[in-house]
This record gives sequence, C-alpha cells and structure tokens, in this order.
Amino acid sequence: MNQINRLAIVGGSHGNELIGVYLVKKFQKYPNLIKRQSFETVSLLGNPQAIAAGRRYIDKDLNRCFTEHNLPDAETPSYEELRAKEIQQILQLQNHEFVNVIIDLHTSTANMGLCIILGNMHPILLRLAAHLRAINPLVKVYIHQQPKNSGFLRSVSELGFAIEVGAVAQGILNAELFQQTEQLVYAVLDYFEECNRGKLSLTNNNLTLYQSLGTVDYPRNEDGEIQAMIHPQLQFRDYEPLHPGEPIFLTFKGKEILYEGESTVYPIFINEAAYYEKGIAMYLSQKEVIDID
Amino acid sequence: MNQINRLAIVGGSHGNELIGVYLVKKFQKYPNLIKRQSFETVSLLGNPQAIAAGRRYIDKDLNRCFTEHNLPDAETPSYEELRAKEIQQILQLQNHEFVNVIIDLHTSTANMGLCIILGNMHPILLRLAAHLRAINPLVKVYIHQQPKNSGFLRSVSELGFAIEVGAVAQGILNAELFQQTEQLVYAVLDYFEECNRGKLSLTNNNLTLYQSLGTVDYPRNEDGEIQAMIHPQLQFRDYEPLHPGEPIFLTFKGKEILYEGESTVYPIFINEAAYYEKGIAMYLSQKEVIDID
Repeated sequence: MNQINRLAIVGGSHGNELIGVYLVKKFQKYPNLIKRQSFETVSLLGNPQAIAAGRRYIDKDLNRCFTEHNLPDAETPSYEELRAKEIQQILQLQNHEFVNVIIDLHTSTANMGLCIILGNMHPILLRLAAHLRAINPLVKVYIHQQPKNSGFLRSVSELGFAIEVGAVAQGILNAELFQQTEQLVYAVLDYFEECNRGKLSLTNNNLTLYQSLGTVDYPRNEDGEIQAMIHPQLQFRDYEPLHPGEPIFLTFKGKEILYEGESTVYPIFINEAAYYEKGIAMYLSQKEVIDID
Repeated sequence: MNQINRLAIVGGSHGNELIGVYLVKKFQKYPNLIKRQSFETVSLLGNPQAIAAGRRYIDKDLNRCFTEHNLPDAETPSYEELRAKEIQQILQLQNHEFVNVIIDLHTSTANMGLCIILGNMHPILLRLAAHLRAINPLVKVYIHQQPKNSGFLRSVSELGFAIEVGAVAQGILNAELFQQTEQLVYAVLDYFEECNRGKLSLTNNNLTLYQSLGTVDYPRNEDGEIQAMIHPQLQFRDYEPLHPGEPIFLTFKGKEILYEGESTVYPIFINEAAYYEKGIAMYLSQKEVIDID
C-alpha cells in the first residue's frame, strides 16, 4: 500500500462516549478541519440510536459486531448487527475502493491518557505511532493483536486503529481531553498527508509500546456477583508497573487481594465501566521498546 | 421529635451509582454492621431493575417520583412511579410508624467529595451535619431546600437526606469513596444512637454550608444541542469560589464563555453526567457559616 485514498473518522460507536460524538459533529459542521488534499476524509457517528439514548449500545456492543460471521448475515440481527453492516457499506461505497484508514474515537473511565490502540503491527501504523509520540510524548501505544474482522470496527481495515482517552466518565464531556483528542486526529491526518507526498522522515526509530497479555476479572461469587473492587493503590495507575505481591483488589470487607503473577506487568483499562459486564477488571500488558524503520 | 425509632438506608435509587448498591448489599449480608440498640435500621435497594440494567433508571428518574401527585395514583404509571409507591410502603409498614430518618446513597461524576445534601434546615439535621464535619472536616454540607414530597426520596421524611460522593464515573466502584461513604453511614447511625440516649454534646456550634441558588444550563442551539463544555479551569472545582468574569464554558470551537453574575458564587455538581438531559451544567450556591445550637 503506497497511497492512502480514503480515511474514516468514527465517533460514538459507543453512544455514551461523548468526546467522539461531539468531535464528529464538529467535523461534520466544519469539514475543512479534516480535509486534506491527497485523500478523502469521511466522518460518521457510529451508533446514532445509542447516542440518542445516552447508552453504550441498544442491543449489543457495536464494537464487537464487525465479525465475518455477523457481517454477511444474521438470522435475528440486533440493531447493532444491522448498523455494523450499514457502516461497512458506508466505508465501501459502490465503485469506490474500501476506506484505507479508520480512526475510531473512544473514551474510557480508566486513566488511559491519550492512547492509540493498534490491532496489528503494520509498519505504517508503527511509524504513525512513533510520529505521534514524537509530537506529543504523552501519547501511549497499546497493541492488542487481533485478526481481521475480529469484531472491532478497527479490525475491518488493515490500517484501522482506535484513539482511547481517559479518565472520563460515561455521558460527559471533558474539555481538555476533547481538545487533546482533536489535536491527535489532526496529527494523524497530517501524517498521512505527508506520507502520500513522500515527505515524511522518521523522527523516532524506536517505539515504546504496551503489548496485551490478557485480562483479569474481578473476584466473583458463584452467582457471578463481584466480591471486590480495584484496590485504591491501583486505581488510575494505568501503564505503571505492577509487581508480584502488590495489591490489586480490595474486598467489600476490606481484605487485600495481591497480584500473584511471577513477573512485573503493566495494567491498563483499570476499572473501565463497560468491562464489568464483560468480566474484565483490567488488561495486563508488557512494556516493550521496539526498533522501527 | 425526641426519639428516632426507624431509619432507612437506600442505595441504588439510581442503578448505575454502584457505591450505594454494593454498600446496601454488604449491609444486607452483614446486618450487624448497621444494627444499633435504640432504633431499627432498614436497608433496601432503590431501583432493582435499573441496577440489573446498569442504568440510572428504566422509564424515568426514580428520585423525582416521590411527589404527592405520583404517590397516591397515576393513570399510566411508569416502573419508577410504581417502585416509588412500593418504597413508601416499605418505609411505612402496616402498624409501624413511618421511618424517621432516610439516608439516600448517591454518587456523582462531579467532584462532590463527601457531601450530605439536606432538603430542609431541621435543627436535628444541622446538628448531624456539624457532628459529621467535626469527625471529618472533609464532609461538605449542601442545602437544597424543598417542600415535603417534592419528588426526591429524601423529601418524604423530615429527617431525610442524601449522601452524595464523587467524582466517580457511573457504572464503577471506587474503593476509597466506598470506604469513606461506609464510615460516614456508621457515623450517622452512631449519631442517632447517641441522640436517642441523650448522650450527645454539640462539638461544633457553627456550620459551614453551601446554600443552593439555582442552576446554570449549557449553552444550546435551537435544537437543544449543547454548544459548549465545562471550561477546564472549572472542571472538578466544586465548592471553590467562582468570581464574575471567570470562564465557565468552552465552546467546541474553543471560545471561552465567562460567568456574568454580579457576585462570587460556589458551583457544585459541575459536569454531572445525569444532568445533561435535565438542562443542568452545574448548581450555583452561596457559602454561609451559620450558628447552631
């Protein structure tokens, strides 16, 4: 792939993550903000019914519906399965090539800071990540490797990725994170514009990233009810090292539960509201520095 | 009223405010924690269907349904109107006197800290507030005067009040605030126990409080869509002075909107997620120190 021809910005795949919703509304009102000469930019709201209802989703999580199985047909499709198909059609208009790049805008109640989430290690994405970190060293890079059409919107395109910012509660705007996300989107657009013009030189030849190792669930009883909370010492400490023997949970009775792994890990997505029902208290990751070229 | 005979602790009037939900579950599992010799303590979950759905409410806000109009009957009752009636019946068992004290447990995405919200200036409530502040000076006292049966659960009893803690996102637990809320509940129970035994001496004869002046809405367009966000300089600054000419909003285009009032006020409930749909960006209050006896 030498040239990016179409790029999509999606906000509100989750209806209660308002920064993406209002950024896309702004881009639709002022399209020049996201217009670049060498490619077409499309912006769209992911889940309009969920946005109207102020909820993450209506029937099921839209950002798990972009699977090969769901996309062609489903016997009793949910609203989100139908919407996933519609979005696919928008991203691939008839007689147009499929969109090359997808930027999917999300927020988290976890202290994700300004994070880009990559579903694969495509050299263009790694170079983009290094570029964004050169502009703003606060940008974090999280790799959660997934096959194509694994359910996530970003997985339908080889150059799809998410921007995940936090900590911000569901259902509210945070002006500082709104502006930081907006600047990050412009930096991504400018990056592809420079790429297309062959003008981009690599500013960083190594990249610090967090590679997913898997999830940890809350302690639960036989009915599935949680029995403990994120430990105060871990709350908001995303990307910081967690050593064996350090506390991760606190039961409702006040008993500490320690991390029993054998090596130091880096938790992220700590105490994300939407993950309680998914059985995820946090992701664990390993921190790596890789060479890129 | 010389003697408290029954006290109710209600959590989960809003289904996505988890600290109250899990505190009540804890109290129901370990009832000795809330048992005191001189009165009966009842604990209950306010909105079980909303708790199961992980939402504030199913049809309408339960904590606006405790009105004289809604309580006796309604032609097409919503789930919450019916539930409000049920709760009234639980609080007034046949052949029992009505519950004397209601503690209604809430959380907010605003930086409310550890706040008690009083709907009236009953001397017993003011003395309670002074007592709680003597134990923990971080406790804040907010007065939002309302008539009896004004819709709020706390308004059905002369000695009803809310505990409002934050900032915490909807749908998550925060262990530190959970434990602080729990200790505050025990302090309230101990206060009424001491009152009943006539053992309580006033530890503070003045009380700092925030008296509600009204609400401020977000700037909106003709369709009702918000056009600005809470200004970063105001975000999380609940209870701090706001002077005329200081910024309160930031439009999506980046323009500051200033506070145009004539006197210094103290905003609270700044950026509460549930208030976007109610047309409330924040409450303004005045800070007062009153004598109590």
